[in-house]
Amino acid sequence: MGRVTVRRPVRMLTPEGKRRRPDSLAAEEPLELRVSGKSLAVTMRTPGHDVELAHGFLLSEGVIGSREDIATARYCDSVDDTGRNTYNVLDLALADGVPEPDTGVERNFYTTSSCGVCGKAALDAVKLRTRYDPSGSPFTVGTATLAGLPDTLRERQKVFAATGGLHAAALFTSDGRLLAVREDVGRHNAVDKVLGWAVLENRVPLLDYGLLVSGRASFELVQKAAMAGVPMLAAVSAPSSLAVELAEENGMTLVGFLRGQSMNLYTGDKRIVET
Amino acid sequence: MGRVTVRRPVRMLTPEGKRRRPDSLAAEEPLELRVSGKSLAVTMRTPGHDVELAHGFLLSEGVIGSREDIATARYCDSVDDTGRNTYNVLDLALADGVPEPDTGVERNFYTTSSCGVCGKAALDAVKLRTRYDPSGSPFTVGTATLAGLPDTLRERQKVFAATGGLHAAALFTSDGRLLAVREDVGRHNAVDKVLGWAVLENRVPLLDYGLLVSGRASFELVQKAAMAGVPMLAAVSAPSSLAVELAEENGMTLVGFLRGQSMNLYTGDKRIVET
Repeated sequence: MGRVTVRRPVRMLTPEGKRRRPDSLAAEEPLELRVSGKSLAVTMRTPGHDVELAHGFLLSEGVIGSREDIATARYCDSVDDTGRNTYNVLDLALADGVPEPDTGVERNFYTTSSCGVCGKAALDAVKLRTRYDPSGSPFTVGTATLAGLPDTLRERQKVFAATGGLHAAALFTSDGRLLAVREDVGRHNAVDKVLGWAVLENRVPLLDYGLLVSGRASFELVQKAAMAGVPMLAAVSAPSSLAVELAEENGMTLVGFLRGQSMNLYTGDKRIVET
Repeated sequence: MGRVTVRRPVRMLTPEGKRRRPDSLAAEEPLELRVSGKSLAVTMRTPGHDVELAHGFLLSEGVIGSREDIATARYCDSVDDTGRNTYNVLDLALADGVPEPDTGVERNFYTTSSCGVCGKAALDAVKLRTRYDPSGSPFTVGTATLAGLPDTLRERQKVFAATGGLHAAALFTSDGRLLAVREDVGRHNAVDKVLGWAVLENRVPLLDYGLLVSGRASFELVQKAAMAGVPMLAAVSAPSSLAVELAEENGMTLVGFLRGQSMNLYTGDKRIVET
């Protein structure tokens, strides 16, 4: 394990000249998640925190609601052609009484709506599936605190500092502390790892926390936050149209373009205290 | 259609003060791809160029090799609750003799390898599935030409200019012309649209073109390029470890951190002419 970065030679061309030197790359490997022996998903992820990733993924997909819903999680004995365990297949067993997830096309729950597949159906599906309602959360955060979060996140992105190639996510408290900073080549994975950490720490629903992401706010990231009961998503970059709609439908606060002392408030202004 | 951007009110807080004004957001809607009436995949995409997206996706997944492999592509009659077509379900019929794709977990072809799932298996799977071998391509490009590509791309990112929230991809020629610039909330979708454009234009295999992306170079983006026969991927940001390995295995050129007059060459230096 510990394959978070990989060294490779690189030829760098700059106006000042050219040189060949070893470069650190963000590691990327497939992770297969199996539930009761059946393959549920394969994601390309940065190795590490895989059990968290699995918990966060299953929470986001509505399969589990708490750590008690998973009985065991262990790497199965998959070996590569040199006979070494790849640590790339995680076998999960659900607790008694927890229904098995559907397999099939990814996110197939969008497609069960009578209107085929549209933004409205996707919004409704998430709403129906959220166990934890973030809309009533009294969580608030001051603008000065919010403005300081991206710098704090960047300071804690150890692998980004080495590779320049990773997304990050973290939970934050009302007074600006960051919990469980996680990095990954995939933005969804970084969020799943953070939410999975919270599942394992028995902190779900996360009604008293915000979720900070280093990139854009897509529908799927808002969905993941909603499924965990997180009342606020703050993104360094732009949100999409459906991300804003979903945040609004779920009574969440969505902050975008959180840069320097500036930010855009798209929904749920009530949780932002101007300081 | 034409829902590429959506206007929403936003509250902007800056050191200079605060104001409320309409903001343009990158549109995001689900698109369901069906083959022979069966759901194959749902992707969250920016509406527009959906038929290209479908062709590029099926090319990347190894289902088709050229436009002749698809008999028809049409929006099915899915309507929302006001009775309007959502234009979010695309029904594809394959030509006679083209095998139906597997459905099931996304990218399940990684998991069929005897070693469970590991980087090596993923690399081998792509290699086995590529119809078009980019390794022998004599395509070259000069460093000055390469250095100019990101600015040219940015100038043509109309929706990014309005929203700040979209990924872009484009094909480029040896002399630096950009073909088929496409934008999307999803980076894979932007690439699928570009490759699908090439399928529809009968330009695949793309042995005489490079692929430019506005963000990072992941395994999956290199895979898509390889499946289309593209010999060079140039990315504005960092590559992952597996992206570099896959490019090397397939005899492709991978350029990262293409910024200003600087760039990093990870594999296939032979196609880069220092000017």
